[in-house]
Amino acid sequence: MHAVILAGGVGTRLWPQSRARHPKQFTDLTGSGRSLLQATVDRVAALVPPERIWVVTGQAYRALVQEQLPQLPTSHILVEPCGRNTAPAIGLACIHLERRDPQAVVAILPADHVVADAAGFRTVLARAEEAAHQGYLTTLGVEPDRPHTGYGYIKRRDPPLELDGTPPIYPVEQFLEKPDRSTAEAFLATGGYYWNAGIFVARVDRLLAEMAHQMPELYRRLRAIQQALGTGQAQAVLEEIWPTLPNTSIDYGIMEGARQVAVVPLQAGWNDVGSWDALDTVLEADERGNRTVAGQVLYVESDHNTVRGTERRVIVLVGVEGLVVVDTDDAILVGRKEAMQDVKQVVARLRAQGHTDLL
Amino acid sequence: MHAVILAGGVGTRLWPQSRARHPKQFTDLTGSGRSLLQATVDRVAALVPPERIWVVTGQAYRALVQEQLPQLPTSHILVEPCGRNTAPAIGLACIHLERRDPQAVVAILPADHVVADAAGFRTVLARAEEAAHQGYLTTLGVEPDRPHTGYGYIKRRDPPLELDGTPPIYPVEQFLEKPDRSTAEAFLATGGYYWNAGIFVARVDRLLAEMAHQMPELYRRLRAIQQALGTGQAQAVLEEIWPTLPNTSIDYGIMEGARQVAVVPLQAGWNDVGSWDALDTVLEADERGNRTVAGQVLYVESDHNTVRGTERRVIVLVGVEGLVVVDTDDAILVGRKEAMQDVKQVVARLRAQGHTDLL
Repeated sequence: MHAVILAGGVGTRLWPQSRARHPKQFTDLTGSGRSLLQATVDRVAALVPPERIWVVTGQAYRALVQEQLPQLPTSHILVEPCGRNTAPAIGLACIHLERRDPQAVVAILPADHVVADAAGFRTVLARAEEAAHQGYLTTLGVEPDRPHTGYGYIKRRDPPLELDGTPPIYPVEQFLEKPDRSTAEAFLATGGYYWNAGIFVARVDRLLAEMAHQMPELYRRLRAIQQALGTGQAQAVLEEIWPTLPNTSIDYGIMEGARQVAVVPLQAGWNDVGSWDALDTVLEADERGNRTVAGQVLYVESDHNTVRGTERRVIVLVGVEGLVVVDTDDAILVGRKEAMQDVKQVVARLRAQGHTDLL
Repeated sequence: MHAVILAGGVGTRLWPQSRARHPKQFTDLTGSGRSLLQATVDRVAALVPPERIWVVTGQAYRALVQEQLPQLPTSHILVEPCGRNTAPAIGLACIHLERRDPQAVVAILPADHVVADAAGFRTVLARAEEAAHQGYLTTLGVEPDRPHTGYGYIKRRDPPLELDGTPPIYPVEQFLEKPDRSTAEAFLATGGYYWNAGIFVARVDRLLAEMAHQMPELYRRLRAIQQALGTGQAQAVLEEIWPTLPNTSIDYGIMEGARQVAVVPLQAGWNDVGSWDALDTVLEADERGNRTVAGQVLYVESDHNTVRGTERRVIVLVGVEGLVVVDTDDAILVGRKEAMQDVKQVVARLRAQGHTDLL
């Protein structure tokens, strides 16, 4: 199995830690000592060695990827001339992989997720690989523990496929857009619905065949890019064609309309750490519910706060509850956990005010 | 009139701006561009020129006083070998002043107060000077606008003294300790009670006479210090005697038991800025009740916060209410306004943890 790690995102809601020049996936968001990208590679290392790992990223991040993953062959860092969503990004990886082995199975992994139980994750990934060998486009479906309205859902069809082993692998009945609250509650009550985590495992030839069928224009242009690979024109052709590719996600462009789609349930402490409050489900708290991601923090009569400090300054909380505090060299964020979705607005306002240095 | 400015305090509750090495009175707490000490001198400048201003402070702060008040004669900085409360500090100033003019009137001014209406303050101070010339130990009594339990109160006796002019000057009936809530409410309902702001105006000979009467041992030792003044032994004698002086306030040691005590009502936006929440009554707020003391601050869906930032970092508040945020090079404070009295505990805990660098 190969792994294609998608590392082109920006992670605006994790400002001020995540910056345009140094986004979320390159930061040690959880205080583990490894960036989310590095942790993604570590997590699959027992299944996928470095010589079968590929990273798709933006031009601005090529050096960061090289620095953080020195074990990767440089040629495995695939650089998008500009951001074009996941369908083109995965297509780019596929045209490279096809030249090596058209029947290769590839795991598509976002670079900015956290998984508590790495071994459990690998078990599920290995199961997905089995289904992929059979021709299935296989998604990992996160078992929901609450009616989250921020994710798309995947509805399974019973009974499971007849493939030996556990966990079971189900055919997919339907991909569902982000639901409203009551719909999400109904999903949980009914059962058989999973969060779409954006993690897919499939054979390269199957992915390309679906692209040819569902996104023929994308497919044709990817072939043109592929033909130039290994020639002196490779980069010029890529740069010419890439901006013309559709800004479409793999979910919407391929998965929702594909034949032979499967889902493997995942219960491994998965979290996409989409905003600061998500750290509550990722990090252990002290006896008063406070979480110190990093730095020196003193809590006085304070509960249920999450603080990311530095070694350069002590942070003292007095009589506060449910706050997120993030300190960096040039910006400090203090906010209510429930308002952490609004951090995106902060970045927009800083941009509007011309504070490009802080973005 | 001379002025004796008491500048030996530490201001623990205004950490992390106020530090043991650089306390409150030497900081620009309100963002005015002047330290509280400098503002104290500015406020009385029209009544008291630099050559009649004296500052009593600790050894560690001598250089700070010189730096902040270069217009002062160096000999007017009176250094206490160690902190011994206000009775000895004022006594030290008196023995210096007596050598110049025993009948001089002296205004005793704490260095760490804020007064919005400087002209109004001077009017009251000038009135107090008149009473002082008549022999009264005259206090400035702040008209209370709420039943504060953190101040001592002064009860006036009607009718006022027969001294021409306004505001009226009243004899003092009684000094009262910090009251409980219901007592303070009764004071306000009754009227004729004032907050004791620790601001006194009196003739030097009257102050020394009261000391001789009420604190004879202190008086005797101050005389010994005085006798050595101008000799080569002055510093040695001061250092030998000073640690033996009683740790007693002028209120408790002298004012409460003195004859001929008067009070002049003060309504001039006085505030002792005893803790961070006090800035609410000192600084203008924006339309959402936020106060930016200094620095660059961005408020997103946030109300009634007080923030002291720096030019080095932007501070962003998201969805929070009623917080104080103070940023310094080595420490950040985030707390609820109502909990700002607990900042004193913070300093105690940092000391207990050995963080002497942060005190």
